[in-house]
Amino acid sequence: MQFQITQELIDNVELLIEEKNDAQLKHLLDEIHFADLAEIVDELNLYEATYLIKLLDSEKTSETLMELEEDVRERILDKLSAKEIAEELEEMDTDDAADIISELPEDRVENVIAQIEDNQHADNIVELLAYGEDTAGGLMAKELVRVKETWTVAGCVREMRRQAENVTRVHSIYVIDKEGKLKGRLSLKDLLTASTKTHISEVYIPKVDYVTVDTEGDEVARIMQKYDLEAIPVIDNNGVLVGRITIDDIVDYIKEEAEKDYQMAAGISQDVEADDSIWQLTRARLPWLILGLLGGLGSVFIMESFEEIMVNPAYRTLFFYTPLIAAMAGNVGVQSSAIIVQGLANNNVKGSILQRLLKEIGLSLINGLALAAIIIIFGLIMGQEFTFSITIALALMSVIIVAALVGTFVPIILDKRGIDPAIATGPFITTSNDIFGIFLFFYIAKMMLGF
Amino acid sequence: MQFQITQELIDNVELLIEEKNDAQLKHLLDEIHFADLAEIVDELNLYEATYLIKLLDSEKTSETLMELEEDVRERILDKLSAKEIAEELEEMDTDDAADIISELPEDRVENVIAQIEDNQHADNIVELLAYGEDTAGGLMAKELVRVKETWTVAGCVREMRRQAENVTRVHSIYVIDKEGKLKGRLSLKDLLTASTKTHISEVYIPKVDYVTVDTEGDEVARIMQKYDLEAIPVIDNNGVLVGRITIDDIVDYIKEEAEKDYQMAAGISQDVEADDSIWQLTRARLPWLILGLLGGLGSVFIMESFEEIMVNPAYRTLFFYTPLIAAMAGNVGVQSSAIIVQGLANNNVKGSILQRLLKEIGLSLINGLALAAIIIIFGLIMGQEFTFSITIALALMSVIIVAALVGTFVPIILDKRGIDPAIATGPFITTSNDIFGIFLFFYIAKMMLGF
Repeated sequence: MQFQITQELIDNVELLIEEKNDAQLKHLLDEIHFADLAEIVDELNLYEATYLIKLLDSEKTSETLMELEEDVRERILDKLSAKEIAEELEEMDTDDAADIISELPEDRVENVIAQIEDNQHADNIVELLAYGEDTAGGLMAKELVRVKETWTVAGCVREMRRQAENVTRVHSIYVIDKEGKLKGRLSLKDLLTASTKTHISEVYIPKVDYVTVDTEGDEVARIMQKYDLEAIPVIDNNGVLVGRITIDDIVDYIKEEAEKDYQMAAGISQDVEADDSIWQLTRARLPWLILGLLGGLGSVFIMESFEEIMVNPAYRTLFFYTPLIAAMAGNVGVQSSAIIVQGLANNNVKGSILQRLLKEIGLSLINGLALAAIIIIFGLIMGQEFTFSITIALALMSVIIVAALVGTFVPIILDKRGIDPAIATGPFITTSNDIFGIFLFFYIAKMMLGF
Repeated sequence: MQFQITQELIDNVELLIEEKNDAQLKHLLDEIHFADLAEIVDELNLYEATYLIKLLDSEKTSETLMELEEDVRERILDKLSAKEIAEELEEMDTDDAADIISELPEDRVENVIAQIEDNQHADNIVELLAYGEDTAGGLMAKELVRVKETWTVAGCVREMRRQAENVTRVHSIYVIDKEGKLKGRLSLKDLLTASTKTHISEVYIPKVDYVTVDTEGDEVARIMQKYDLEAIPVIDNNGVLVGRITIDDIVDYIKEEAEKDYQMAAGISQDVEADDSIWQLTRARLPWLILGLLGGLGSVFIMESFEEIMVNPAYRTLFFYTPLIAAMAGNVGVQSSAIIVQGLANNNVKGSILQRLLKEIGLSLINGLALAAIIIIFGLIMGQEFTFSITIALALMSVIIVAALVGTFVPIILDKRGIDPAIATGPFITTSNDIFGIFLFFYIAKMMLGF
């Protein structure tokens, strides 16, 4: 069943565009799914892409536009007139239309909205634009099926048929009172099985999950996942039903969030992709590398202050262990922080701070002892002096404990202050643990070996 | 609207269990959502948790069991009789029931299945157990609404009412021929608007996305996301409709996959959580730390082979830069690999190997030049000899280029060989880049400074 885009198809499309063979193009792309069309558009140059978007039916191209990367879409929209953009927006659900408009240059927005023929649709879009991007208001669509509690089942089915025309997928039917306030929901199953004369007030389910327009996006995602919801109604501060959020919007949201955390952990500060330009990739990567470099220069300073011991061949070997110490401090810190960051995101970090402190210390002691044993065995095999091996092993254990505590508590503190803890899993924690670890290592060695 | 679990509620539940006050317990927990009940069960000890599961209605507790962590669920099931487990399974959808059974100890499986009263349900579960966990067959449920193409709309609605009893949510109605082969689907909207005497064959949509029982889980996730599907039918190798996969199962799948990648990048090899035991966490973390330690010992060897230059104060400073070099090699490697791993997962790594090679080199040159400039400025401020700064800067650039290439191509090669490329974003790439970077650094310094 799988659609596979082929070079042959692309060549064919390009040729037909060059020949301006509109009839043949329409025929060729008539049956194609909008998501597949988006893949084709991705392979074309800007002129060809714009040509296709203008040529094909807005019902399909509006969905295709939504599937494109933001920068590709921006360039195409730039080539369309306000009227042409408005035609695409007419076909979109209000949430998608609002997203597109917020991407337009400011001076075009008013013009494009004025060109939307369906006034209700335009008003809805303008309403959505007022909400913050990451709130339930910003995520919701205005399209939904609502029925009044005073109606009969028969009247309800009639009304639903009318409303369903504008709603791509009917997840739930929401029941409202005469002021528009959300009262409950109605399942299709109940509607199918109830007698046609029954009043809605007798069959609806009054218990319904909802969020308000101000609810944060990640809270919406958490609620929908926890309660396995496929759609959730959104109410305003007066309890009036104003929109609904569907699971497909949330899937994208969850994925984006997960990717953002992953990228942050890897030291990439913007949402970039493998196929972005070198400049975009540099902007996302270089700042973190500079941070790492400055950290590295910090450890140069620390080591310089211990330079005198290099003269003594017995202690020189300490310097060979600095990359090992730094790497272990970094690894342990990243592990601890990744576990805590995920725990915070999934809401399963429980218990007191003291318990967590003891647990991390216990964990580090176990890991540290195992690694210390390897260091000592390595020292024996290499014929290293025993006190020297013991010194390194003990220093390593201390570094591991400190790194684990930093990795655990920095995200917790950030989270408490309302800062995204994911920032602490990446180069930030590695770099600070590197510096800290190297300092601790030499300091402990100094105390133990007495130089 | 949000349910908030309170210590008071937990205390109350514990007291009622102690008093064996079943009536009051049932009353207290009657209205509670199964996902909230799972949070309560999580806070109880094993005896109390088992008591609640046995006491409350299986309709609710079966869903609650599905929400619990696998290890908590395992311990509770261990305390239930085969009959009691079978009662829970009766209430579950077939896909969930099959998941639970595959978690049971082997010697209990047959017994539990024999106790399921609904033979059809039991047969369906046994059928699902035969499929691989990560295939469409392993993900699908048997519950779905299917109608024959020869029926009328009226007959179809009648039949749907009957079938809908067993199906929690009706996403789509699937149309089959008399051999059970998938022909297409029917939207609820069409069913609502068509005349009751119309034949299904006249109104159904013949174009329907589907997967086969062998399709890999991540492919199913990709298709459902790409085409914005809320449910997808699953056919066997003869084209017969055998089940369907719904988006909520896929949301969990996507999330698990993202978390797995994230954990692997952080050097955690099993699916662990912040609240797992110290032993579980150690098992997941220690192997990667040992890998890092061995890598660190490798760099000890490399540096030892350059020990003689320590005698010369002019070259000693090189050793102070090793943690910096190792850190930069690690950071660049992790960045490159994270971008490629995500690109591979999202299927947007395009173009030839040569193009990618040139791009990575270009990117590394830009980043490397910027960082080299900082190194040189730092050297000037510190009054370092200029050739020395240039040496470090050039060595750093080479290390960055090599690290970026390793970070890019190791995941690509792993992916081509069918190995999960995510394994290459973590300590694996950091450690190998550390060793490689330090060696390259000293080697280039040796060539340039001529020691």
